[in-house]
Amino acid sequence: MAGDGAAGDAFASKVAAALLPRDVTAKQLGMEIRSVGLGRATLAMAVRPDMLNGHDVVHGGYIFTLADTAMAYACNSYNQNTLAQHAQITFVAPGQAGETLTATAREVTRGKRSGLYDVEVHGGDGRLVAAFRGATRTIAGMVSPALGAAPAN
Amino acid sequence: MAGDGAAGDAFASKVAAALLPRDVTAKQLGMEIRSVGLGRATLAMAVRPDMLNGHDVVHGGYIFTLADTAMAYACNSYNQNTLAQHAQITFVAPGQAGETLTATAREVTRGKRSGLYDVEVHGGDGRLVAAFRGATRTIAGMVSPALGAAPAN
Amino acid sequence: MAGDGAAGDAFASKVAAALLPRDVTAKQLGMEIRSVGLGRATLAMAVRPDMLNGHDVVHGGYIFTLADTAMAYACNSYNQNTLAQHAQITFVAPGQAGETLTATAREVTRGKRSGLYDVEVHGGDGRLVAAFRGATRTIAGMVSPALGAAPAN
Amino acid sequence: MAGDGAAGDAFASKVAAALLPRDVTAKQLGMEIRSVGLGRATLAMAVRPDMLNGHDVVHGGYIFTLADTAMAYACNSYNQNTLAQHAQITFVAPGQAGETLTATAREVTRGKRSGLYDVEVHGGDGRLVAAFRGATRTIAGMVSPALGAAPAN
Repeated sequence: MAGDGAAGDAFASKVAAALLPRDVTAKQLGMEIRSVGLGRATLAMAVRPDMLNGHDVVHGGYIFTLADTAMAYACNSYNQNTLAQHAQITFVAPGQAGETLTATAREVTRGKRSGLYDVEVHGGDGRLVAAFRGATRTIAGMVSPALGAAPAN
Repeated sequence: MAGDGAAGDAFASKVAAALLPRDVTAKQLGMEIRSVGLGRATLAMAVRPDMLNGHDVVHGGYIFTLADTAMAYACNSYNQNTLAQHAQITFVAPGQAGETLTATAREVTRGKRSGLYDVEVHGGDGRLVAAFRGATRTIAGMVSPALGAAPAN
Repeated sequence: MAGDGAAGDAFASKVAAALLPRDVTAKQLGMEIRSVGLGRATLAMAVRPDMLNGHDVVHGGYIFTLADTAMAYACNSYNQNTLAQHAQITFVAPGQAGETLTATAREVTRGKRSGLYDVEVHGGDGRLVAAFRGATRTIAGMVSPALGAAPAN
Repeated sequence: MAGDGAAGDAFASKVAAALLPRDVTAKQLGMEIRSVGLGRATLAMAVRPDMLNGHDVVHGGYIFTLADTAMAYACNSYNQNTLAQHAQITFVAPGQAGETLTATAREVTRGKRSGLYDVEVHGGDGRLVAAFRGATRTIAGMVSPALGAAPAN
């Protein structure tokens, strides 16, 4: 299970700081990292007018993208390159114009190569907007070779 | 199962034409409707530099958004307002900068309120990039009240 | 969210007691209800030799069936007939001959008609065997008309 | 994509014949292999009274088990040990007492280690009962070392 000690948090923050500048999508959509640790991450995204669909609510694609990105910071926090392989999302309540959505990713389980993460996306008033579950695969390489291996947890 | 007669196709095209102008996300992402019929739709999207992630491949969120939008045109083709409730995606191969992705949605089954759709996303060379399956719910209202009910199929 | 007060637990126990005698599959597979409350249930099942597959580990179908049944007791606990509509399972570790598997279902969210439940299946040593997520639909009728409506929570 | 040549079909039949005698669950549930080829399989199962749930329809667990088993014969047809890692099912219509359910598995995509399979379960009258999608992982070892490698396709 994911560590939540101070050393793990500090390490995960360094990995996130290395990942973020390369993450064109996260930047272009205005995502902010609110919190990160080994196996967990919380990201926020303010809804923009160009994120709406024909029903004037947030396009499900942007809700998915926020959740998927939160999972990416959680699963890459160990500094081992890790990709989403499968993801599932349930849309519970619409996201509204003008609010800020928050996605919190936590690790359900993590093996040598396979991981499973749950992400909940909440609206500005705290209601559940979507529940996301994603499966990841760890591949070769480190997010930041300079950082080396994650602290044991 | 979805109709593929000429009357159904013509009706679905009119519904899509009514939906598209309100669809800020589809327009902003440069999506094009290549083909539409009752219960089916094919959309294309050219990959832009701001759609890449830190690994220089297309962010999974944009692949999901394209697939989700193809499902939206397929499931709304009957002119009854229909929303995605659940969706699942498997990422098979990365999407690359400079290519055009194509998403083809087909109806697996459609009941009074619930529908199930499969979407395959292919790359410019025809390889399978992602397989998506979504469940929909029909709600009150028509996409375009002026168009009335879909032809029986 | 699911209530966990004593009145809710007592009510849920009565609903479960009404459901169990009709539940041929649960009985035939030797499932036992360990705990139940509004929106939650924990069931146990001892692995029998006829539940193994060709690799001498528990057939995934029985793990799914246990998880699905735990969800059924959780989502029917309000005494409103409720069915599984979609379910997803990730197999994390094999189940072994001779051990007792435990499935714990909790409510992620519950609306007027739609619910979402997470179930974790653990082995006799506490390891995670499978993670299950299911979506439900409430239909007409009560599990036990004599019990009436669930206490507000 | 799965081969459907005669050599592939013959090979897949031999693999299935090697797998079946070890498959206690399939035998105990009375499953029959109707057809098998490289990357595909069709299985049938007659509904027994002990497969019903409290609503007198087939327990979803048995429908899942049939679909999962069809996938197992499809994905193991290459004679490389392959396991289900994730699976998703949508219940479309109830299965009824006295009918025979048929599950047909087809390969969506297959890589070196990862595969994706769709399974449709139909009732005796041909209606769609459930749609299943599963993701597999190939592990070390052959189903039947004596059979060797599958014919190229």
